[in-house]
Formats: sequence, structure tokens, C-alpha cells
Amino acid sequence: MTETSGKGTSRRGFLKAGFAAGGALVAGGTAARAATPDPLITQVQPWNTVLGDGVDVHPYGMPVKYESDVIRRNVPWLTADSVSSINFTPLHALDGIITPNGLCFERHHGGAAEIPKEDYRLMINGLVDEPLVFTLDDLMRFPRENRIHFMECAANSGMEWAGAQLNGCQFTHGMIHNVMYTGVPLRALLEEAGVKTEGKWILAEGADAAGMTRSIPIEKALDDCLVAFKMNGEALRKEQGYPVRLVVPGWEGNMWVKWLRRIEVGDKPWEQREETSKYTDLMPNGKARKFTWVMDAKSVITNPSPQAPITHGPGRTVITGLAWSGHGTIKRVDVTLDGGVNWHTARLSGPSLDKSLHRFYFEFDWDGSPLLLQSRAIDETGYVQPTKDALRKFRGNNSIYHNNGIQTWSVNKDGEAENVEIS
Amino acid sequence: MTETSGKGTSRRGFLKAGFAAGGALVAGGTAARAATPDPLITQVQPWNTVLGDGVDVHPYGMPVKYESDVIRRNVPWLTADSVSSINFTPLHALDGIITPNGLCFERHHGGAAEIPKEDYRLMINGLVDEPLVFTLDDLMRFPRENRIHFMECAANSGMEWAGAQLNGCQFTHGMIHNVMYTGVPLRALLEEAGVKTEGKWILAEGADAAGMTRSIPIEKALDDCLVAFKMNGEALRKEQGYPVRLVVPGWEGNMWVKWLRRIEVGDKPWEQREETSKYTDLMPNGKARKFTWVMDAKSVITNPSPQAPITHGPGRTVITGLAWSGHGTIKRVDVTLDGGVNWHTARLSGPSLDKSLHRFYFEFDWDGSPLLLQSRAIDETGYVQPTKDALRKFRGNNSIYHNNGIQTWSVNKDGEAENVEIS
Repeated sequence: MTETSGKGTSRRGFLKAGFAAGGALVAGGTAARAATPDPLITQVQPWNTVLGDGVDVHPYGMPVKYESDVIRRNVPWLTADSVSSINFTPLHALDGIITPNGLCFERHHGGAAEIPKEDYRLMINGLVDEPLVFTLDDLMRFPRENRIHFMECAANSGMEWAGAQLNGCQFTHGMIHNVMYTGVPLRALLEEAGVKTEGKWILAEGADAAGMTRSIPIEKALDDCLVAFKMNGEALRKEQGYPVRLVVPGWEGNMWVKWLRRIEVGDKPWEQREETSKYTDLMPNGKARKFTWVMDAKSVITNPSPQAPITHGPGRTVITGLAWSGHGTIKRVDVTLDGGVNWHTARLSGPSLDKSLHRFYFEFDWDGSPLLLQSRAIDETGYVQPTKDALRKFRGNNSIYHNNGIQTWSVNKDGEAENVEIS
Repeated sequence: MTETSGKGTSRRGFLKAGFAAGGALVAGGTAARAATPDPLITQVQPWNTVLGDGVDVHPYGMPVKYESDVIRRNVPWLTADSVSSINFTPLHALDGIITPNGLCFERHHGGAAEIPKEDYRLMINGLVDEPLVFTLDDLMRFPRENRIHFMECAANSGMEWAGAQLNGCQFTHGMIHNVMYTGVPLRALLEEAGVKTEGKWILAEGADAAGMTRSIPIEKALDDCLVAFKMNGEALRKEQGYPVRLVVPGWEGNMWVKWLRRIEVGDKPWEQREETSKYTDLMPNGKARKFTWVMDAKSVITNPSPQAPITHGPGRTVITGLAWSGHGTIKRVDVTLDGGVNWHTARLSGPSLDKSLHRFYFEFDWDGSPLLLQSRAIDETGYVQPTKDALRKFRGNNSIYHNNGIQTWSVNKDGEAENVEIS
């Protein structure tokens, strides 16, 4: 097995040394088609002669028809109704660290509310010097910040507590997205209203039919939370809280209240449904952990994976995936091909940003034998992503949320991948 | 006038000191509605009670209907036919530094070619040890990189050579976008083929009906060019060269050949149409500058601007815009409110990345008197964005391309902005 870096790959180093290291000379290198005349190169193709769409055809562009399988997908049996349900980001079909807005997973509790921007209001009340009501235009008169952050549902990978359940990283890990937010620091709005000394918590409330409410400690509210109105440059999508959502970097997605209508300042948490009967972790002793807000370091190999098998046969192969931590940046990602016997340092590519997805790659020469693929993330605090068994040992078997255990894909000799668990 | 930073804004510092500094006490602060009971807060609204769309409604999401005016726009009289034309990114409606894929400007010379990914081929030939043909799958077996880069058409702001022409930054500066590309370094593919010692240039050729061809020096080809297949995480959009385009960071957009079908290695430039009769700069002495590849430092205020007036009246006002340089990062952006008499340092927000858009803000208290707004970018080399007159002094009046002169918006007492020139 040979590791290569993106920078130093020489011609010999890549193809030839690679094949030699693989043992037998494998068929199908990365580019060996020159000897066979290829009609797709030697003959004129329709697109070489036919004029394509003009610039007036699609004022707002959509993906090409050949990518129509790259969509969010829901699992109908997972919930009773699609208005209180989830669809999943197709992580296996993406690369880099930005999630395009049209593919960001959705999780609603009363469907995606539709609010005209002129009718949008945000109230700040409770333990403040002066209760205030802001229009969207009011918010846009405060200084703005731009930051890329991942947003992960606390229930992401939740089905995996019971063992390998769902066959595809879209379903096991697809309750996550990563976009650039533009917004106003929540701190600026709270300072405008004047938080009283006894104000220690905020309640964030949504304007949708579910009236989602979550308590957040004032320290976090005054730290890095954003009242955001843009994602990846444009207005928030309706299903992401248009016109305004709360951004709570590194913390579970349920707290990122969408269609944000009210911030109440109080002296203790409100103990709402979504922080008591839901989004808590039932422990072996029958008590529940609550206020488990931070999303710990986690990673997943997105390719190959059950929805994205290796189709090119043995030879040079790229493994890629995502890593993230609610505690900051990712320092290192390790990849194993043999279920944890040997670990290799993956290559990170792209900007390393606080509480953002990180993209990793591991290139190797596949000899065609079965693989047991895993990745593990190490974040800037030194925390190492644990195995699922290590998590179960502490948390028992009743958990739904906060499963950041190491994911295993078994790859067979045909390159097909399957969700498995190994001990 | 008072400058505030995003971090240190205290309550008093923001509203009260701001107003005092503005001279007379102006009407309409950023949030003064609490005293007037607002039915949009006090009464139940439809979205508080009616269930919204479920997660099965939009497998690929689109913007909410209330943002239907945020679209690419073309100027029908600009070209004879829409298949060889331009549409423009709505910069005035965006924020942050990422351009969403559906709003990235288009410039085609034979329309947007539509190529099935299975039928995609890239040939490397000419002065190489071994001519090669790659499928898309072949390309994806090479180590990938992820980088955010701006892509600007050389003709961006071209109409402005003749004075203030188009009323809106979408039209004056909207031939630019900024996305995260995922691709393979062109260097890796050239090394795979083996560039002969006498190979000093490459010719990049598109597979569209226009057969776009541009010469690029081998130093740039081996430096930071990418053969890219993803933008903002997902497959390239059709109009951006699906399935594969060339990324030539910091250089004029015409060289970023879309639907890339062939890279030929040669010993001199090919002197193709697009680098002789087009994309050259006719100088006062009748000779033309050619090979003017790098896009020099430039900036534009996106808000307020002709399509995005100040609607809130006097008081706290946010000015924002974009700055970029083909030579690297932006070190500083200055903003003037009075046509260059006084300059103020703007606040940059978001990651500062090589050859990427940078977002700047300048917050001030508008007293309601007319403004002459300008911004000027200074890049990491120390280069200062020049005035349009300074450019004309050197380049004369025959130029079409490479207008990076300072843009002026005149704002009247009603907040309406207009494209003007001042000497």
C-alpha cells in the first residue's frame, strides 16, 4: 500500500510505483485508454455541433438532468407523517465541504413554515431592560458576520445504536449540512435590549406550527450564536427557516430554531418538551442525561459506501469522507482498511474552519480483496472519536441521540459496500 | 460618523452614541417598535397554526417564492443571440462570499452543452511522452483538492470604459462568481502523460459547439489549475461545464474552459480567436495588449446600489460589498461616502482565501444627505485598485476588457442609488 499526497505525486510515483506496490500488476489503471481509439474522442459528438441552452433559459439554475438521482431522500416508515419527519443529505454524491442549499437535509416538527419577509418579526422579551421587536430590515442594520458551520441533528446516526441498520451514509449520517451563514450576532440584539443581571438563559421560539422552543444558556447566546438570514450567499431556504433562523455553532441542530420569532431571557431553563422527553439520553440506570448540547467529534467515509460502490475494479482508489467537531477544528483523521488493525493518516483538503465540516482523502492501490473501512476523527482538543461499543458501554442501549461512534463499511471483492458492525 | 466593529458593539455604543454622532436625532432606529403593539407579534398568524410542506415535497430544494426576483438576468440588446451571450449574478441580493450554484453567471459562445457523464472524455496530447484519454471515473482516481476561487469574466465592467452605463451592480460587476471547486490538479494529469522538455504551453479546448480554445503557459498549468468536477459540493452545473471544467485561479474567466475535452501540450501559444481578436486590449497607439490574464484587484459596493436602495431612511446603515484579486488575498478595503474626500477602513468578514471573493462591511449613521459611495481594494501585493480615469490615461478609450476601476454610486436623500462617474 502506498500513500500519495496531492502535491508531490510524480508520474512514476503515481501509476507505476502504485501498481508495483499493489503486488500483482492490476488491470485498469487510471488512464490507459490512449492505445484504443475511442469514438467519443475521434468522432464528432452532438454537443460538438449543436448549440446549447442560451443564457435566458434558466434564470435560476438547476442541476443537469444526468444528476437527477442526487436528491434528499426520506424514509417513509421512520415517522408517522412527513410534516414531522426528516430527509437526508446525499453525502455519498457530494465532495468538498459546502452543502448546496437544495440538498441540505430537512427536519421539521410541523412542516416547513412559509412566512412573507415583510411579515417577519422577532421579539426579544423577558429579563431585559427594554423588550424589542425587530423586522427583517431592522436586523439588517446591525453589523453582520459570515461563518461556515456544520449543523447536525442530535439524532444523526441514531438508528445505529441498535447495530448496523441503514445501508448508506445518506441515511446513517445525512442529517448534517455545512453552509456559510450570514447573520447578526445574537449578542448584538441582546445588548440592544439589555440583558438584566439575573438573565442566565434564553428561550428560542420558532414561528412554525410546532412552535419549537429550546433553552440555551446565556454564555452561548452571547458567544458565537448568529441570527442568520442568508445561507451560501442567498436568502435562507424556506425549509431552513426563511427568513431567519438561529445558528448555534457546534451544538445539536434542534437548538438552531428556524422561523425564529422570539427570544425570551430568563433565569432558568424552561424544560420544554424538546429538551426533556426529546433530545435527552436515557442511561442504563433509568435516568436521562439532558442538556447534551455539543456534537462531539465524528467522521464517516462517504466513498466508497453502500450507495457509492467501487465500480472501477482493483487499482488506484480514492477513499473520501467528512469529519467534524462541535468543539472546534479537526486536527487529524485516521482511516483503516482492515477494521482497525492498521490505521493510516488521511489527507485533509480545503480550509480548516471552526465547527465546520472537514474533507479527508486516503488514496491507495486496491488489490481487489475485501475491505473493512473505518475512519476516526481527532479534534483540536485531542478527543478521539470512539467506537460504537465504547459508547454503548457508558450509555447503555436506550439512547437515540448523540451517536458519534466509528462507522464501518464492509467492501466485497466486487467493490460493493455494506453497513456492518465489528467488535 | 462612527465606526463600529462586529465584536465590540455595546448597546449604548450602537444605538445611542450612533444617533448622537449623526448630528440631529434621526427617526427610525434599528429597533424601536416595542412600544407599538404589533399584530404580527400579538396575534396568531397562519404559519403559527398551519402545517407546512413535509420532507417529501422537494427532493431538490428551490428558493422560497418570496425571493423570485433573485435571479440571473441577461441584457437582450447586448448580444445578437442568447446562445452567445451573458447573464449576470445578482450581487445586490447576495451576502457572504459563496455564490449559490443556481445564481452563478453564465457566458457561453455556443450555448450550454449537454454531455452525459458516461460519454465524457478528456484527451491529453501533443508534446507528451504518452497521449492519454481519461473518462470521468479515471479522473476521480487521482488525488483531489478543494479550493474556493472567484471566476471573473475579463469583460466584467467592460461597458464602464465608456462611462457610467448600466444601472446596477448585477450588470456592472455581475460577471463573477465564487464557489468551492473539487477537482484534480492539472499538474497530476500532465505528469501522468509526461510533458516533454520542449512543452511550454497548453491548449485547453472545450467540447461545446463553440469549441472554445485558449493557450495557457505551462508554468500556470503546473501551478494551481484544477480539472474540476464539483462546485459547492455537487456536480458542476451544465452551464458551468458539466461534467468537467478547467479552473485557472485568478485568471480571466474565458480561460476556464468548460466541457473540457482536450489539453494539448505545445511549444508556443496557438494564437486562437479568443486570445487575438477577442480578450485583448486595443491601446491608444493602435497595438493590442495580449495575454493579459490576471484579474487585478477590484471591489464594488453591492448595497446600497441602484437595484438595492436604502429603504429605511436616515439612521444606522450598513454598507457592504465584495473585493477580490487575481494575485492573492485582499489586505484591506477602503470606503468613501463623499466621492473620495475621506476614506474609511472597511471591516472584512469571513475567511480570507487566496484568489477568492472577500466580503466587506462599513457601518455608519446616515444623516439623510446625498452620498457618493466608492470602495477600493488593496491586495496582498500592496496594489491599490485605481480610478477608471487612471486606467483610461494608460489604456485609452478602445478597451473592452480588464476594467477594474473604482465604481461610484450616487445616493440621493431618498436612498436611491445611481451609477455615476466623478472626476
